[in-house]
Amino acid sequence: MTAAFEAAEAKLLQRLDSLLRIPSVSTDPAYAAAMRKAQDYLLTWLRDLGFTGEMILEAGGHGAVYAERIVRPGGPTVLVYGHYDVQPPDPLDAWTTPPFEPAIRDGRLYARGASDDKGPIAIALGAIGMLAETEGLPVNLKILLEGEEEVGSRTLPNIVRDHAGLLAADVVVSADGARWRADLPTVTVAMRGNTGFEFTVRTAGKDLHSGRYGGILRNALHVAADLVSSLHDADGHIAVPGFHDGVPEPDPAERGATRAIPFDEAALFRELGAAPFGEAGYSTLERLWLRPTLDANGLWGGYQGPGSKTVIPNEAHAKLTMRLVPGQDPARVKAAVIAHLRAQCPEGVTLEITETRGGAPAYHVPADHPVLLAIEATLEEVHGARPLRVRMGATLPMTVLFREALGVETLALSYATADEDYHAPNEFIRLSAINEGLRAWTGLLRRLGKLPSLRPAA
Amino acid sequence: MTAAFEAAEAKLLQRLDSLLRIPSVSTDPAYAAAMRKAQDYLLTWLRDLGFTGEMILEAGGHGAVYAERIVRPGGPTVLVYGHYDVQPPDPLDAWTTPPFEPAIRDGRLYARGASDDKGPIAIALGAIGMLAETEGLPVNLKILLEGEEEVGSRTLPNIVRDHAGLLAADVVVSADGARWRADLPTVTVAMRGNTGFEFTVRTAGKDLHSGRYGGILRNALHVAADLVSSLHDADGHIAVPGFHDGVPEPDPAERGATRAIPFDEAALFRELGAAPFGEAGYSTLERLWLRPTLDANGLWGGYQGPGSKTVIPNEAHAKLTMRLVPGQDPARVKAAVIAHLRAQCPEGVTLEITETRGGAPAYHVPADHPVLLAIEATLEEVHGARPLRVRMGATLPMTVLFREALGVETLALSYATADEDYHAPNEFIRLSAINEGLRAWTGLLRRLGKLPSLRPAA
Repeated sequence: MTAAFEAAEAKLLQRLDSLLRIPSVSTDPAYAAAMRKAQDYLLTWLRDLGFTGEMILEAGGHGAVYAERIVRPGGPTVLVYGHYDVQPPDPLDAWTTPPFEPAIRDGRLYARGASDDKGPIAIALGAIGMLAETEGLPVNLKILLEGEEEVGSRTLPNIVRDHAGLLAADVVVSADGARWRADLPTVTVAMRGNTGFEFTVRTAGKDLHSGRYGGILRNALHVAADLVSSLHDADGHIAVPGFHDGVPEPDPAERGATRAIPFDEAALFRELGAAPFGEAGYSTLERLWLRPTLDANGLWGGYQGPGSKTVIPNEAHAKLTMRLVPGQDPARVKAAVIAHLRAQCPEGVTLEITETRGGAPAYHVPADHPVLLAIEATLEEVHGARPLRVRMGATLPMTVLFREALGVETLALSYATADEDYHAPNEFIRLSAINEGLRAWTGLLRRLGKLPSLRPAA
Repeated sequence: MTAAFEAAEAKLLQRLDSLLRIPSVSTDPAYAAAMRKAQDYLLTWLRDLGFTGEMILEAGGHGAVYAERIVRPGGPTVLVYGHYDVQPPDPLDAWTTPPFEPAIRDGRLYARGASDDKGPIAIALGAIGMLAETEGLPVNLKILLEGEEEVGSRTLPNIVRDHAGLLAADVVVSADGARWRADLPTVTVAMRGNTGFEFTVRTAGKDLHSGRYGGILRNALHVAADLVSSLHDADGHIAVPGFHDGVPEPDPAERGATRAIPFDEAALFRELGAAPFGEAGYSTLERLWLRPTLDANGLWGGYQGPGSKTVIPNEAHAKLTMRLVPGQDPARVKAAVIAHLRAQCPEGVTLEITETRGGAPAYHVPADHPVLLAIEATLEEVHGARPLRVRMGATLPMTVLFREALGVETLALSYATADEDYHAPNEFIRLSAINEGLRAWTGLLRRLGKLPSLRPAA
């Protein structure tokens, strides 16, 4: 460690401590003043780093903090993404120390937002500050820190589309997006997409008495159960015709790489309190990363109160969502599932479809993206081991948004870790991760400064 | 019509008018005083008919009115059953005339309780009064009018068991139990039994994120849907091993008789807003009267609110009830369904059973019961056509209770009709049915007086 690095790390921890004391909870209007205070704090921080053009980009919700530092006009530009809003701290009783009074215990910094996403933001800004004060910034930087990530990034699509010119860059590097594990350097190269809808079946004009009419007409719950049951076969394969259209057979090399990843499956299922189950012929990680899913998220109808009610329910409802892999189009997948339900729905039963969400395709970074290669080289340097390319089962619509609105790819360099209880009491970030992160971000920015282009070869 | 008959009918209508003005709603404590007023009114009426031993039989709920008139000590005795409590009148706005102000329109008497069950009680007491005043009662009579039929006869089992000596009789004739249709004389000879329970499946320790864990473990809603779906095959047969144990193949003669019953099936399904569906190989009436059922009355789990929630639910619930036919034992049927669910439940999934109701076997009057034959002869005399023997899909636990506690069969002679909107606004009874009912009850009592025994041959 150089003296400059140590000074930068100390300054970073001091700034982070102040930022964590601001209860910027985006979902609760009671924290509106804190949201503005967090914006002001970040604008000041960025100004101190020599950034200009600071402003709040708004589209009807909590604004996003923006600033830029153009060191080489026309040269390569990185857009750094993060978010300053945090989850609510409830239940307060479950915290060992108060959520907005940062506390260090056993090498961990505890506070709401420490891991998600104020710690990772502070790491990125700390690295930028250190380079700015010593050798100078190696690339142009634009910073976008949104204030609504914890409420579904409601206005981010409009903010990005409205300011596409301002935000123009060659690549997005995200300080958000937790690492899979602390003990293994990894880089996330793909995530699943999603889509979904709700359906209702109606079998009669009203609920009917199960004695007076039992046996002579369809029970809406039986129809709904048959429909949900028809979505998968006994081997866990999705049984919807057309669902897998465009999904390539998993590449043997990719499967081999996935199988080679050291992974304590027994520990995972112990933690979940569940038994492993999924599509036959695939391992747990393959099911999670390489294969699409179709889940009922809600299913209901009839009497749910105490005791018994002898009713033949005339209506039943289900909410379905799908996770998609590369090659699947959200609209076509949704249409295939709806067509399957219509084909399976018995004559005389009404099937109604309700839209509940749009859809995002799966996201996959080009395997030879120069920034991906630079991140891998950086991680190998910091951790002394070649990082594994991993995927995410979940969906980050932001990646697709940046691709569509700005024409650029998004890579994550986050030093939050998936086990750090974000969205729960006693959220923390490892102090060791802050140190590693600062090294990685400075290393990556230096590398990017040496690349001829931050875009993949056409 | 004799003058005596006309006088009896007029007196009956006058008494019924007074009884209908008493709002004896058993489910609502606000009507407690009216419940006692109805008891007093009936006790006075019975005393006026020459009955003695009037008393209120109680077991912690609304009491039952009891009185007896023993005209031939040791001779044949009929226990007449009915109930004086009524359904709540809500929604009041939907009534053309107020529910507790009886009004005659178009040959119908409108009031809450007119059809269920004060009208039918008044018919029975009217017939008894006419016979008592003219030729004398032909049989010993005991009257039991309960006050909790509309709340599930909660305390009737204890009342009957506690007073089995007092209530001892050779047969029960019920003034309750609606006729199937007004245009066709019928006698109900069987009804289905019932039983049921609730089950819960658990697939993980908590709800899980459908992105982070989708595809690697079981979704409780999928398991519940598979289980409910497994209860029937595609032809509507119940697919539970052992479910039909003891159920005889329907007797060809019985099937023939059922098929011969004139029945406007299209009109029924138009009214229900449903398509006919049931066990393959059986007609609608056969499905309703001769075959058992297995219905989900409730099914729920996961997110039921607006929009979408990407959750893998870890718990799902279902309530099931079964309708039983002769030969089935409620406890054994319940055990068979539970065993089927356990056999179908995948490894690693917890299945929990919750009791929600006891059970009642199906009820079937012996085909040669002398009182059944007497009712048939009476109906033929009154209506000029041989009545059809019909069944009910529903369950009247009272019939099984009288058989078990008193060792006697129950036959219904009711002149309420299934279309008279009992349990709904604008309840009515046909004035023509009061006239027919008075003729039938006097005719039946006369016939019973001539029988050597009111019990079936051993």
